[in-house]
Amino acid sequence: MEIGMIGLGKMGYQLSLNLLDKNYTVIAHDMSEEARQHIISDGGEAAPTIKELVNRLQAPRIIWMMVPAGDATESVFQALLEHLESGDHIIDGGNAHYKDSIKRGDACKEKGIYFFDCGTSGGVDGARNGACTMIGGVQQEFEKLETLFQDLTVENGYLYTGPVGSGHFLKMVHNGIEYGMMQAIAEGFDILEKSPFAYDYEKVAKVWNNGSVIRSWLMELTEDAFGKDPNLEQIKGIMHSSGEGKWTVETALDYEMAAPIITLALMMRYRSQEQDTFTGKVVAALRNEFGGHAVTKV
Amino acid sequence: MEIGMIGLGKMGYQLSLNLLDKNYTVIAHDMSEEARQHIISDGGEAAPTIKELVNRLQAPRIIWMMVPAGDATESVFQALLEHLESGDHIIDGGNAHYKDSIKRGDACKEKGIYFFDCGTSGGVDGARNGACTMIGGVQQEFEKLETLFQDLTVENGYLYTGPVGSGHFLKMVHNGIEYGMMQAIAEGFDILEKSPFAYDYEKVAKVWNNGSVIRSWLMELTEDAFGKDPNLEQIKGIMHSSGEGKWTVETALDYEMAAPIITLALMMRYRSQEQDTFTGKVVAALRNEFGGHAVTKV
Repeated sequence: MEIGMIGLGKMGYQLSLNLLDKNYTVIAHDMSEEARQHIISDGGEAAPTIKELVNRLQAPRIIWMMVPAGDATESVFQALLEHLESGDHIIDGGNAHYKDSIKRGDACKEKGIYFFDCGTSGGVDGARNGACTMIGGVQQEFEKLETLFQDLTVENGYLYTGPVGSGHFLKMVHNGIEYGMMQAIAEGFDILEKSPFAYDYEKVAKVWNNGSVIRSWLMELTEDAFGKDPNLEQIKGIMHSSGEGKWTVETALDYEMAAPIITLALMMRYRSQEQDTFTGKVVAALRNEFGGHAVTKV
Repeated sequence: MEIGMIGLGKMGYQLSLNLLDKNYTVIAHDMSEEARQHIISDGGEAAPTIKELVNRLQAPRIIWMMVPAGDATESVFQALLEHLESGDHIIDGGNAHYKDSIKRGDACKEKGIYFFDCGTSGGVDGARNGACTMIGGVQQEFEKLETLFQDLTVENGYLYTGPVGSGHFLKMVHNGIEYGMMQAIAEGFDILEKSPFAYDYEKVAKVWNNGSVIRSWLMELTEDAFGKDPNLEQIKGIMHSSGEGKWTVETALDYEMAAPIITLALMMRYRSQEQDTFTGKVVAALRNEFGGHAVTKV
């Protein structure tokens, strides 16, 4: 099978290697000349423009987009919409907002192109050795591509989720859950760190990974992290985020439902990005106003 | 090796079967005659009183306590303290509060008895087929018992954690993490349930267990639960708790540190136990007072 891969970043490059292993013909496009040379030296082919990529693929084409959500995804998508023809397939394997994916699905439908929103989990290692994917789109066309998903994922690691939008929606919620799980794990180790006991955190994570209720891939990553830096002295506790957690919380707000753990896990990330807070200043000032309590001066 | 097992409830019974499989001599005590007959028919022995259990074991004795935390643990412990002698070992495999375990360790020390606080995770299945244990106590004496822990647990499933108290403390924090992880998973499925998509939750949990970032034993249990009851229509969303989550939050308060996810996961359990809340009545009344907003009458 022939796949046009757009985007040779961390994920797209590893997915391409994964496909090459499985004897797919990979024709890749990336704006970086260096990235294109790289995939050629790995046994792939490369096209300098999306137009050329489309021209070199045989119809009906299969394009896998693996570019950052937002502007990059939109500009690649628009170029594809211009150059692809009826019967072709676009798989967006990135982390687009499901509402954008629904719009893209509609735009594709008008031109007879099949759009699939494919949530991809498992990190860089998963992309290389077996990912987990959740795919929305037209079921009948999905079935034609099913072996592709089978080949890219671990056993039982792909799911057809329903109409366009359902794949990225499911991946979004997956990431929301991930935020909550990570914060729970992290708070637990923070309590250990403040305890009177001298735990070896790598060993703690290891024993928890062997037979405990909280054994998980995230705990395995915790074990690895403590293995490299036993007290995480080399890094600061600043927690960035890349969108899906926020979208999950916005979705809960859309539905006017309570999802307090996922919400607060997100907000604790925001809190970690501020060294001091205006909230803190206001509360300190008020305590001083009503009770004469000392404030810490700048 | 000869083990005196006290408590043949869900966990103690399964641990006893696990020990019998590994050719230990198990002499068990339980207040229930039926439970004692049961273990005899499984190849164990039974003693009707703690005194008789102690008398039938050869010194230095190894007693494994597997009874509910609180009064039951305290009363078994006091009986053991009365009947055991210098050089004997007590392993409390239950979920006692670590501060109680430290007190019990001190009381044992005065009599030359070795006390171990052993946090046991992995549920009933783990107790039967390989648990995960975290053990505090005197290291030199732990090493004499190490094969016991090796035999009862999965590979790499036991850890010597330090002085008495450190085992139950670690298990307590493990349970706090568990509360947060469970609530995060649950909120995610709640968002799916309110979405416009018609997900098959068993299949969702299954795909997430194969290659995703949130793959975990808890997600496997989620898959099993949806396998039995696809929309959980047979059960109410009332979430009970048995102490360790609360202790974890109390410990965070002792240390005056933020552990908001674990705290809120616990409080959402409390919320689920109330059909209506006085909080809700107060807020509804206030909205009515200042804005004439409608209230829902009883």
